[in-house]
Amino acid sequence: MSDSSIGKLFRVTTFGESHGKGIGCIVDGCPPNLGLTEADLQPDLDRRKPGQSKFTTQRREPDEVQIFSGVFEGKTTGTSIGMIIHNTDQKSKDYSNIMDTFRPGHADYTYHHKYGNRDYRGGGRSSARTTAMIVAAGGIAKKYLAEKEGIQIRAYLAQMGNVKAEKIDFSEIANNPFNCPDVDKVADMEALITQLRRDGDSVGAKITVVASNVPVGLGEPVFNELDADIAKALMSINAVKGVEIGAGFDSVMQRGSEHRDELFPDGFASNNAGGILGGISSGQDVVASLALKPTSSITKPGNSIDIHGKPVEVVTKGRHDPCVGIRAVPIAEAMLAIVLMDHYLRHRAQNADVSVATPAIPARRG
Amino acid sequence: MSDSSIGKLFRVTTFGESHGKGIGCIVDGCPPNLGLTEADLQPDLDRRKPGQSKFTTQRREPDEVQIFSGVFEGKTTGTSIGMIIHNTDQKSKDYSNIMDTFRPGHADYTYHHKYGNRDYRGGGRSSARTTAMIVAAGGIAKKYLAEKEGIQIRAYLAQMGNVKAEKIDFSEIANNPFNCPDVDKVADMEALITQLRRDGDSVGAKITVVASNVPVGLGEPVFNELDADIAKALMSINAVKGVEIGAGFDSVMQRGSEHRDELFPDGFASNNAGGILGGISSGQDVVASLALKPTSSITKPGNSIDIHGKPVEVVTKGRHDPCVGIRAVPIAEAMLAIVLMDHYLRHRAQNADVSVATPAIPARRG
Amino acid sequence: MSDSSIGKLFRVTTFGESHGKGIGCIVDGCPPNLGLTEADLQPDLDRRKPGQSKFTTQRREPDEVQIFSGVFEGKTTGTSIGMIIHNTDQKSKDYSNIMDTFRPGHADYTYHHKYGNRDYRGGGRSSARTTAMIVAAGGIAKKYLAEKEGIQIRAYLAQMGNVKAEKIDFSEIANNPFNCPDVDKVADMEALITQLRRDGDSVGAKITVVASNVPVGLGEPVFNELDADIAKALMSINAVKGVEIGAGFDSVMQRGSEHRDELFPDGFASNNAGGILGGISSGQDVVASLALKPTSSITKPGNSIDIHGKPVEVVTKGRHDPCVGIRAVPIAEAMLAIVLMDHYLRHRAQNADVSVATPAIPARRG
Amino acid sequence: MSDSSIGKLFRVTTFGESHGKGIGCIVDGCPPNLGLTEADLQPDLDRRKPGQSKFTTQRREPDEVQIFSGVFEGKTTGTSIGMIIHNTDQKSKDYSNIMDTFRPGHADYTYHHKYGNRDYRGGGRSSARTTAMIVAAGGIAKKYLAEKEGIQIRAYLAQMGNVKAEKIDFSEIANNPFNCPDVDKVADMEALITQLRRDGDSVGAKITVVASNVPVGLGEPVFNELDADIAKALMSINAVKGVEIGAGFDSVMQRGSEHRDELFPDGFASNNAGGILGGISSGQDVVASLALKPTSSITKPGNSIDIHGKPVEVVTKGRHDPCVGIRAVPIAEAMLAIVLMDHYLRHRAQNADVSVATPAIPARRG
Repeated sequence: MSDSSIGKLFRVTTFGESHGKGIGCIVDGCPPNLGLTEADLQPDLDRRKPGQSKFTTQRREPDEVQIFSGVFEGKTTGTSIGMIIHNTDQKSKDYSNIMDTFRPGHADYTYHHKYGNRDYRGGGRSSARTTAMIVAAGGIAKKYLAEKEGIQIRAYLAQMGNVKAEKIDFSEIANNPFNCPDVDKVADMEALITQLRRDGDSVGAKITVVASNVPVGLGEPVFNELDADIAKALMSINAVKGVEIGAGFDSVMQRGSEHRDELFPDGFASNNAGGILGGISSGQDVVASLALKPTSSITKPGNSIDIHGKPVEVVTKGRHDPCVGIRAVPIAEAMLAIVLMDHYLRHRAQNADVSVATPAIPARRG
Repeated sequence: MSDSSIGKLFRVTTFGESHGKGIGCIVDGCPPNLGLTEADLQPDLDRRKPGQSKFTTQRREPDEVQIFSGVFEGKTTGTSIGMIIHNTDQKSKDYSNIMDTFRPGHADYTYHHKYGNRDYRGGGRSSARTTAMIVAAGGIAKKYLAEKEGIQIRAYLAQMGNVKAEKIDFSEIANNPFNCPDVDKVADMEALITQLRRDGDSVGAKITVVASNVPVGLGEPVFNELDADIAKALMSINAVKGVEIGAGFDSVMQRGSEHRDELFPDGFASNNAGGILGGISSGQDVVASLALKPTSSITKPGNSIDIHGKPVEVVTKGRHDPCVGIRAVPIAEAMLAIVLMDHYLRHRAQNADVSVATPAIPARRG
Repeated sequence: MSDSSIGKLFRVTTFGESHGKGIGCIVDGCPPNLGLTEADLQPDLDRRKPGQSKFTTQRREPDEVQIFSGVFEGKTTGTSIGMIIHNTDQKSKDYSNIMDTFRPGHADYTYHHKYGNRDYRGGGRSSARTTAMIVAAGGIAKKYLAEKEGIQIRAYLAQMGNVKAEKIDFSEIANNPFNCPDVDKVADMEALITQLRRDGDSVGAKITVVASNVPVGLGEPVFNELDADIAKALMSINAVKGVEIGAGFDSVMQRGSEHRDELFPDGFASNNAGGILGGISSGQDVVASLALKPTSSITKPGNSIDIHGKPVEVVTKGRHDPCVGIRAVPIAEAMLAIVLMDHYLRHRAQNADVSVATPAIPARRG
Repeated sequence: MSDSSIGKLFRVTTFGESHGKGIGCIVDGCPPNLGLTEADLQPDLDRRKPGQSKFTTQRREPDEVQIFSGVFEGKTTGTSIGMIIHNTDQKSKDYSNIMDTFRPGHADYTYHHKYGNRDYRGGGRSSARTTAMIVAAGGIAKKYLAEKEGIQIRAYLAQMGNVKAEKIDFSEIANNPFNCPDVDKVADMEALITQLRRDGDSVGAKITVVASNVPVGLGEPVFNELDADIAKALMSINAVKGVEIGAGFDSVMQRGSEHRDELFPDGFASNNAGGILGGISSGQDVVASLALKPTSSITKPGNSIDIHGKPVEVVTKGRHDPCVGIRAVPIAEAMLAIVLMDHYLRHRAQNADVSVATPAIPARRG
């Protein structure tokens, strides 16, 4: 079983490995009459794609998405949208040496035992290349949510190793190659990447993603809460090891009197909840963070075994990112967009039967 | 839309509020011929239920589960299992005063706006009472996994506020009312609860849940990875604000050379991955942690608004837990059991087509 | 695997056997604020239940449904609705004799081999008793659709053996114990049942179910068409062996010029399509028919084998219906209601993005 | 919402219209290590594709399927399989005249009202061209089932208008352009098609599809029975208006003593059940029939309205099949294969817990 789908009403199903003919996805459930062309999706794909700066892998993949179906005369028809990106820059020989080896920290070992038939080229299906289709699919959701509800979804690199963004200025994110919102930390991040390159090593990262103007009421009360689906979507991104909503793990140390976000006629006084109460959006910003592990694809030698159980030393050649968190920023945005889109459509299925006299309070005070 | 289901092949669907006739669930997909009686499920229900010690709420609910169907002559038939727990101790009057008020930190506000029809008694569907059925359903999964594969699932309170367990001794968990694995921290936890009672306040907690003897190969490669489904299941537990797999957020500071778990013929050298590589179980212990927020049901006054938007002061009476993490320990076990059971059955659907010459390495070294 | 669920947004999951503590279901996805009490559901349950006339089984089951959750102060809350019917009249001894025998035409043989653990009492999970919960769940859908859209769903016995209704007068259906719309055929049906009783035999039947005032646009274009989901739902009713939409199998002999329903400004000229074009409702009456096999529970001896493979003669004692089609009429209505409700909610999820200048034409001409 | 998916464990999701860049599908859930190349799938695609004889449409579409992913070194990897067929022969101008017109019997009217944005070229998503991907996906299921269990799935044209096959000789099906198993009726079918061409008309058809060597135990007891899923899958094929299992609508006239298939130690005495009892396969041949309506794409003028509600006369030009049943034969096989494959994998998820002493009886007697 593979089960490469996410979402219930806005459903994204993907296929493809890093070294096949290409990768693709089907976006099923996008409402009709949304203006859509490839040009709407390409910018986020370009943000994700390799080779954008000297701080990420130097692989070059044009990553040009083609829409095969579901769009007619520039507008979605309401039927399934098929999209393809052809694979181009494939250096299979880079990988032939690890054909019989399990790279530590990679999925080689688990794929080998689960399937007994592993596409060893670039990690096959476990390659982060598959996230390109998430970004393409998420781009449709982002455009729809922005046009319908003015929902804006933005992510940034909150931390790289020990370098932590302190000032969160969204206008700075695009001004540096790290998607860092704190202009004062850019030099430190640059220095860290340079050091990692020298060491043949890598480092982890923390990304924070924020959705603004989310309407009140998205999410189901049990099992399919908005936060539960966000946690699943973000955890399903390659290399993610942790997910937080709002205050996240800081809640462990908080008192109830401190954590609970008090309400006032002019808005909530704080947002420890991360915009979600009882699994349902409150109208405040939806705030989630994710922890990404340092990539295991490093040139520093490591111990492992081969498929025959014999010990081997592994040095991962090829062209890899010292910090996968940088390129993961648009992926996090896309994933959150897919989840919000799904719950937005779910909510519309029942919302017509709800009338509430009092309006929702503003997202923020004063 | 409600969508109160979790799981694909082992599917649990629940109903019930804290103050209706009762709560129940349907466990669909349990294989036939598993020995099962109510007595198998009651112990975990008793661990979760209120009034077990002076450190939790003094509400008394017998929480006696009844199996209505799917079991014949003491064995599962392979058809859907219906279970019921009748509600008994219902002090509706405790809640009448907040009928028109949104308690800060609660789902009152979001339910009001989502549904326009809120069962204000004890939080209705958002009540943690609904987790009793999760424990009952998870008990079936736990029994099955233990009998078939020797899988053992155990959780403990890793941290309560600033009191953190350091020695992890599983044999101590049942010896104290906090499910704390570190006997030296029990006194501190007791002191903290006493202080919180005095302050009319509450505190957050961190729970860690561990599954041993999990076979290699559980999990799908994309979107429905084992870690993604664990994240969703754990985040869907009331009050959870964060989820970690293995090293979790510590990965942010790690180097790749440190994080990657090296492989040796006699096992993995470490378990930063938390037993999951590329979304698929590696045979090591599956380790997950969750952050629970401090309950907002405290007697300390807080600011809020009523359903007419007017400011009010809220004091949550009723009988509540100063630290919901204590009773959430069996819930975390049940949720992990449900996810592992689901992926175990998924894996069986394809595993017959896999033959791997080399055996999996032992979960641990030496 | 059991998978006792139907529907995507309006999802019904059932449990229960004819001889357990009781049967039940969870209706998940009913919008909030629908007025609902047990009294709304009981009438259809009474139409289905045994012992209503001398022409059906004389078993007596009060079949009183209890709503456990999801309704507050007489209105649905939008959360999952749990319902229970306790089993009462259980003559287990009636069945003990067939404990080791496979009754021909029954599910005994397939259950034995699929599960290896068969609840032989009254067919266990394969008992038509399970359809009581379908009627209860369908009753919620019927009430919702009637109140929101004026959709009316009515079924009738179109044929019993060789006795075929010719005049279709909906006002006659409730006036006879056969749910027959043709008053002139009631005597023939009565005579046929009497003859079957004498012969210790049974006969098949055809039911037609019609939904009026269905809006245009329900159904998905591929795989999840409205007609595909109706076919699945109706075929899943016990004893059903065939399903038709509109002209059904008569289409085989028709010419295209005859079958296609011409359109005029004042409506469609005919309804061979049964109200569904390209899998999507057209606004005309949705018309479906189903073929029910004669029950195999007859006193006429039949050849079979026991669980050891030895030949045996089977005489099915107990109290059975000579024609199960009579009591299946409300079940067919309930199933169609469940499917229409599901697609109505699906349609609402996207319909807000559609604006069509020209109004739909009337369902019928002139 | 579109929801272009079918299947739970073996899941097929399609995209594409007759006039976009191409059509495609994702086959998700195929087990690993199945030998697979495009050459395995092309033969059935060629059976379905137009222009194969003078009795079907003269459109020419190479319909060459490309496998993009999920296959490595000639074997399935167990991950999602992406397939594409590019559209080539597109005579859009053929359709421009019906841009504003609703062709009677077509989905034009319902698509217009459902989506408000209709791809009028060749019916867009409602085009039977989309069935090419069903055939490709079904080809994978057919190959798997044949190799694992020796399951053979064969369909034939049982009736075209008033010409009915009487002798069912599977070896004759491939010997004539009609997929007719009765050599004596081929001339009549040829004469009928010639007459239809002369009349500018079309006719309906009945197809029967048979699966041999199906193991006992496939299917769920309630809602997701094998017959229910077959009914859904077959009804979802374009132009299908009815589905039968086994005796189907003939059951209406049968007595229970006649319909019930008696069991003997050496097999079942008959197969009125069509190989399915209680929704679960019995080991006998699974037999299903489907009724296809006559295509509405005929040159005989018909009355309709345009999108402004004005009356128009419609003459459907373009190149169409006088009897769509001919080319639908491989589609019926593919659909049955997809359903059986899905239930085969579901069954494997639980079957390991079942042990039955007595072997299943042979599918047929003596």
